[in-house]
Amino acid sequence: MQAIMKKRPGVGLEIGDVPVPTPGPRDVLVRVAKTGICGTDRHIYEWDSWAAGRIKPPLVAGHEFVGLVEDTGVAVRSVRPGDRVSGEGHIGCGHCYACRTGQAHICDKVDILGVDVQGCFAPYVCLPESNIWKVDPAICDDQAALFDPFGNAMHTVMAQPISGKQVLVLGCGPIGLMAIGILHVGGADLVIAVDPSPHRRELAKTMGADEVLERADEKTVKSLTDRDGADVMLEMSGSKQALQEGFRCVRSGADVSLLGIPHEEIAIEWAEMVIFKGLTIRGINGRRMFDTWYQCESFLRRHRNLIEPLITHRLPFERFEEGIKAMQNGTACKVVLDWTDARV
Amino acid sequence: MQAIMKKRPGVGLEIGDVPVPTPGPRDVLVRVAKTGICGTDRHIYEWDSWAAGRIKPPLVAGHEFVGLVEDTGVAVRSVRPGDRVSGEGHIGCGHCYACRTGQAHICDKVDILGVDVQGCFAPYVCLPESNIWKVDPAICDDQAALFDPFGNAMHTVMAQPISGKQVLVLGCGPIGLMAIGILHVGGADLVIAVDPSPHRRELAKTMGADEVLERADEKTVKSLTDRDGADVMLEMSGSKQALQEGFRCVRSGADVSLLGIPHEEIAIEWAEMVIFKGLTIRGINGRRMFDTWYQCESFLRRHRNLIEPLITHRLPFERFEEGIKAMQNGTACKVVLDWTDARV
Amino acid sequence: MQAIMKKRPGVGLEIGDVPVPTPGPRDVLVRVAKTGICGTDRHIYEWDSWAAGRIKPPLVAGHEFVGLVEDTGVAVRSVRPGDRVSGEGHIGCGHCYACRTGQAHICDKVDILGVDVQGCFAPYVCLPESNIWKVDPAICDDQAALFDPFGNAMHTVMAQPISGKQVLVLGCGPIGLMAIGILHVGGADLVIAVDPSPHRRELAKTMGADEVLERADEKTVKSLTDRDGADVMLEMSGSKQALQEGFRCVRSGADVSLLGIPHEEIAIEWAEMVIFKGLTIRGINGRRMFDTWYQCESFLRRHRNLIEPLITHRLPFERFEEGIKAMQNGTACKVVLDWTDARV
Amino acid sequence: MQAIMKKRPGVGLEIGDVPVPTPGPRDVLVRVAKTGICGTDRHIYEWDSWAAGRIKPPLVAGHEFVGLVEDTGVAVRSVRPGDRVSGEGHIGCGHCYACRTGQAHICDKVDILGVDVQGCFAPYVCLPESNIWKVDPAICDDQAALFDPFGNAMHTVMAQPISGKQVLVLGCGPIGLMAIGILHVGGADLVIAVDPSPHRRELAKTMGADEVLERADEKTVKSLTDRDGADVMLEMSGSKQALQEGFRCVRSGADVSLLGIPHEEIAIEWAEMVIFKGLTIRGINGRRMFDTWYQCESFLRRHRNLIEPLITHRLPFERFEEGIKAMQNGTACKVVLDWTDARV
Repeated sequence: MQAIMKKRPGVGLEIGDVPVPTPGPRDVLVRVAKTGICGTDRHIYEWDSWAAGRIKPPLVAGHEFVGLVEDTGVAVRSVRPGDRVSGEGHIGCGHCYACRTGQAHICDKVDILGVDVQGCFAPYVCLPESNIWKVDPAICDDQAALFDPFGNAMHTVMAQPISGKQVLVLGCGPIGLMAIGILHVGGADLVIAVDPSPHRRELAKTMGADEVLERADEKTVKSLTDRDGADVMLEMSGSKQALQEGFRCVRSGADVSLLGIPHEEIAIEWAEMVIFKGLTIRGINGRRMFDTWYQCESFLRRHRNLIEPLITHRLPFERFEEGIKAMQNGTACKVVLDWTDARV
Repeated sequence: MQAIMKKRPGVGLEIGDVPVPTPGPRDVLVRVAKTGICGTDRHIYEWDSWAAGRIKPPLVAGHEFVGLVEDTGVAVRSVRPGDRVSGEGHIGCGHCYACRTGQAHICDKVDILGVDVQGCFAPYVCLPESNIWKVDPAICDDQAALFDPFGNAMHTVMAQPISGKQVLVLGCGPIGLMAIGILHVGGADLVIAVDPSPHRRELAKTMGADEVLERADEKTVKSLTDRDGADVMLEMSGSKQALQEGFRCVRSGADVSLLGIPHEEIAIEWAEMVIFKGLTIRGINGRRMFDTWYQCESFLRRHRNLIEPLITHRLPFERFEEGIKAMQNGTACKVVLDWTDARV
Repeated sequence: MQAIMKKRPGVGLEIGDVPVPTPGPRDVLVRVAKTGICGTDRHIYEWDSWAAGRIKPPLVAGHEFVGLVEDTGVAVRSVRPGDRVSGEGHIGCGHCYACRTGQAHICDKVDILGVDVQGCFAPYVCLPESNIWKVDPAICDDQAALFDPFGNAMHTVMAQPISGKQVLVLGCGPIGLMAIGILHVGGADLVIAVDPSPHRRELAKTMGADEVLERADEKTVKSLTDRDGADVMLEMSGSKQALQEGFRCVRSGADVSLLGIPHEEIAIEWAEMVIFKGLTIRGINGRRMFDTWYQCESFLRRHRNLIEPLITHRLPFERFEEGIKAMQNGTACKVVLDWTDARV
Repeated sequence: MQAIMKKRPGVGLEIGDVPVPTPGPRDVLVRVAKTGICGTDRHIYEWDSWAAGRIKPPLVAGHEFVGLVEDTGVAVRSVRPGDRVSGEGHIGCGHCYACRTGQAHICDKVDILGVDVQGCFAPYVCLPESNIWKVDPAICDDQAALFDPFGNAMHTVMAQPISGKQVLVLGCGPIGLMAIGILHVGGADLVIAVDPSPHRRELAKTMGADEVLERADEKTVKSLTDRDGADVMLEMSGSKQALQEGFRCVRSGADVSLLGIPHEEIAIEWAEMVIFKGLTIRGINGRRMFDTWYQCESFLRRHRNLIEPLITHRLPFERFEEGIKAMQNGTACKVVLDWTDARV
C-alpha cells in the first residue's frame, strides 16, 4: 500500500510502498479515512536532532487519524469491522507500574504510533484493541481525526480546576488554541492568550480568548487579573522566554501545566518563583486513557466550534508536502489529509 | 526587657533592651519559655544578601517558641492567661484571596515573626490570636518550641500521598531529618536519605532512613527502588546539584516537593525531566494553617522520638552565640534557648 | 428601627421595633439595601417543628442581603464605611478544628444570621468582619442580595468535577435552578432536571436544562445518558422519593451531592445503591469560606442570566407577607425586598 | 481434577471432579498452592438468599489464592510458567467507561472468580493475564493467598487520608482486623475498634487498636477523640446498628467508608447525620487495579504481622468443611487451604 514514510535518515518524507499490516491476536486493523499532520510529523520531516536520535527508518509517519475497522485479531472483543474509530497513539507496555495504575500515557516503555512503530499515514493502520476509540456519530471525520491534539489540549486544561479561574495560555499553536476554546466553554473566568504572531492572536480571539498579548508581560497580566496574577498558567509553546516570563505572571498558589516541549535547559528562580509562591507545576504528556478521551467526546459533541476554525487545509494525502510547507511558513494551523483514494 | 536583636545593619546579633510589647485588641502577649534557633536566624546573624535586603533593624529575631499566655487584647476569646502556647510565625493579612481560601501561608503581604515584625527572642512576644496554637500537655516544652520547623517537615511530607511510597529525601538538615522521622512512622515504604555529611547520614539512620547516600546518584537510587525511580522526592537542601540530580532519580509520574531554598537560578531539562515524565512539582512554604499544626500535634503525641534526637544543644539565651557557632561548624542540629532567667 | 421579626413563638412574622445593633471591636455594621427571602425564613414564618425547636424569639429574621458599610469596630481593617457588601451568614466560632482547617461552614458552634442571631430583615445588620464580602461593582444589588443561595448552588455543583459530566438535578426550587444555570455555563455535558411542577420544569429549561422530567425514572434517565446512569447527582429537594429514586439513576462510581434537607429518616439499599456501585456521597451545607464566594463572583460577573430569571417578585419590605404567600402558593421563585424606606 | 464446588442449588459444598480449564489467548493457567476461605464462600455454602439469586451451579468456589503459572495463552506477554502469582478476582469487561477510566473494580459487567466464573478451589485456576499479580518473593504463600481480603482492607483504609487521623473501625472480622493493622503502621493517630465479640476485640488489640468497644456509643467515642467525634469511620460489619450508631460518632466533615454489606435497607437521619455535618461517604468494593495491590505489596513486605496473627486454621483442602464450621462458630478468623495433594 502507499504510505507517507521516512525511507532513510535525512530531511523529507516521501510516498513509498509498504505491506498492509497483519493484526496480531489483540490488534485491530483500521482502514484510514482522514489523518492530521502534527508538529511531530514536521520534526520527522525536518529531521531535527530529536528525530535523528529517535526515528529508525524505514518508518510510516502519522498518529492522528479516523477510519473504519477492517479486521480484528482473534482475542478482540470490543469492536468489529465497520466501526468508525480513532485511536490513542501511545501504546503502553501494559505491565509496568504506570500502566497498571492508570498512567499508561507515561509508561517508560511506550511505543508511539508513527514514531516508534508504523504510523497512520497509510490506507491501513494497526493498533492494539486497548488503544482503539469508537467515535460518536455526532462527531464528523475531520474532528475525529484530530482527537489526539485535542486530547493534549483537554489533558492540559483539565489537569487543574478551571471553574471561575483566570487562565494564562502561553503559545497559540493548534493545541494552545484548542485549549483556549475548551477554557472558554468550560467555565473559566478569564482567558489571556499570549503569542508573538498577530495571526495566531486573531485566532485566539476567535476561539474565545478575552485578552491577547504579544508576550507575557508581568505588569500587564497582573493588571488584567483580580488576584495579582493568573490562577492557572498553561505553557503550550516550549519557549524559554515564555516559561521564564510566565512564572512571574501567576499568583501565589497558582497551578502551572507544561505541555510545550523546550529544546534546551531553562533556568528559573526556584526560590522566588516556585517555592515562596507555593506553586504546583505539572508536566503534561499525551492523554489520560481514557478519561481525556471521554471528555473530548463530550466537548466535541456539545460545542461545534472547538476544532473547525483551526482546520486551514484539507488535502488529498499525496499533497502532504504542501501541508507541511504551510505549517513551516505559518499559514497553516491544522492540516487534514484524505486517504480515500490511496492505492492498496 | 532583654532581647536577642539586630541593632543595626551588619554581621552579628546582640542582647539589647526593648520595651515589652503591648497587645492590640486581637493580640496575645506570651511569656516566652523556650525558643529554637532557625537557619533563618543564622542568615540574619550572618547578614547575607537575603537578610540585608529584607531586615529593617532594629529587630528582635526568632520565630520558634513556646510559652505561657500573659495577657490578651479585648477582642481575644480563645485563650486566656496561663495557657501554654506556641504560634504560627506567618502573619497573613487576613483579607486577600490566599488568606480567605485557606492559603494564608502564602499570603503576599505576610509578615514573618522575627523577620518583618518583632520576634520571640525575648521574654515576651506578641502575636495575633489567630496565630496562636495551644499546646497539648503531652508535648514537652522543648518539642513545642520546635513546632515551626517540624511543621515545615510535616507540610512537605504531607503535600502528596506517602503510604506505601518509596521516598527520596535530599538534604539532612534539621527539617530533612524531621521529615525522615515522619515518613518512617507515617507509612512510607522506603526512605532514601541523601547528604554529603557522614554525621548527618548517621542521624538520618537514627531517624529511620532505610538507605543513606552521599549524593543522589541516578543508578544507585533506581537500583534501590522497585519502579525505576523514587515515587516521591522531597528537596530539603536548596542545593543546585541536589535538585538537578534528584529529578533524574524519580520515576515517571512522581511527586516532587521543594522546601529547600536555592540561592541562585537553576537550569533543568524540562522536557526530559518534567514533561515527558509527567511529574507534579510543589513549592512548599510555611505550614498550612492549621491542618499542618494538627498533624504535628498528632505525630508528636504518638511518637516520642521525632524531635528529641535532633536537639543537640540546650542553652540559656545569653549563650545564643555558642548555638549559632555550633550550627555554623556543623556540630549542632537544633539549638534550644531557655528564657527563664531573662530580665524584664 | 423597623424589622421583620418573630416576636413570640407561633405562626407568622411581623414588623416590629428593635434597637440598631452596636458593632463590637471586630464587627461591621451594614445599612441594608436589599434582602432575599429564603425557604428558611418561610419555615420560621410557618413555625414548623424545626423552627419551634431552634428559634428563640424575639428574633429578626433574614440572612440574604446587600448593603453599604455604615460603621466598623475598632479592630476592623478590611472594609470602611461606604463599601458595598454582602455577607456570609454562617458565623463560625473561629477556634475549633473545623474553623481552623478551612471548614468553618460546618463549625459545630456556628451561629446563623437570622436564625441564632439577629438577622438582616432590618435597615441595619451587624456581622463580624471575617464574614463580610465586598461586592464587585459589575454585580447589581438584586443579584448581590442573593449571594447566599447562589453560593449554596455553587458549593453543591463544585463539590465534584462537572466538566464533560452528565448531571441529574433533583428539585428545581431556586437553588436547584441556580445549579442548573451554573452547570450549563460551567462545562457539564448534559443536565437532566427533575421536578413535579410543570412551571418549575419550564424555568429549568430557561436556565439551561437539556432534559426535564417529572420524576427520576431509572429507565428514562439511563436512556438519556451514555454510561448507564448519570455521572453526578445533585439532590436539591429534600424529598424521600427523589433521594431513593435518584440513587437508582446514577452509574457506578458516580458522585452524589446532597443539599436538600429531608425532614424524616430515609431508608436506602446501601449494598446495591452505594457499596457495590462505589459511590461517593457528600453532604453539602452552607458555602466554603470563601472559595465558593470567589467562584460566585466570577460566574455572576461573566454570565448575566444566572439569577435574573429567577427573581419573580421585587417588593418594599413592608409587603414581605405577599412574598411569603407567593412562595407558599408556588407562584414565586425568589422574592427580593427593598429596605430603602425603612424607618430607623 | 478435584475441586470444592456447588454441584446443585442448596446448602453445602462438596468435592467433585471438573476438567482442568484451558486458557484462551489472553489467559493464564495457574497451579494453585494455597487458597483462603472468604465470607462469600461461606454464603455460597450456606446458600443464603444472595447466593441463591446469583450462583449458577455447577460452580467451583473460591477467589483467594496463590500458585505458580502453569501455562499461558498465545497473546500473554507479562508472565511465564513458574512465576509465583496471585490474582484479582474481579474480571472487568475491559471496554466500558469504568474499565477505561481506572475503575474496573466497579465494572457493571464484572465477572467474579468463584461466583460468576469457575473459581480457585481446585488445583488449577484460569484468569485473564490482566488480572494476574506477580508475588514479591518476600511475601510468603499464606499471606499471598490472602491478597484479596487484605486488598479490601487496604482499599477501605486508603480511600481517605489517615495520617494523624482518629479512626473508628466498626466490625472486627478478618477484613476489619486487617484494616486496624494497616492503620496502626500507616500513620493514624488513634484507632477505636468496635465489635460485640470479646474474642475479636482481643484480636483488634493484637493488631494495634488503641481502644476497643462493644458498641459505637456516641458519648464514649466522642470522649476518646479530640474533635467531638472520629475523623474517619470505616464500616466493616454490614450491621444496621453499627451504621446508624457510627454516623453519630463522627465529627462534622468526617470521611466515612463503607465496605460491610448490609442485608437490608437501613434508614438514617440524612439531615442531621450527613448534610449538616458535611460528611463524605464512600462505598468501597473490591480493590483498585492495581494501585491497591501495590500498596498491599509494600505493606506486607515491610510489616510482618499484618496477616499472620489472623490465620487461625491451616488445613488440607479436603478438610474445608472444618474451616467453614470454624468460621460459623466464631473460632476461626482466616482459614487457609493447602492444595498440594489435590488429585489432577
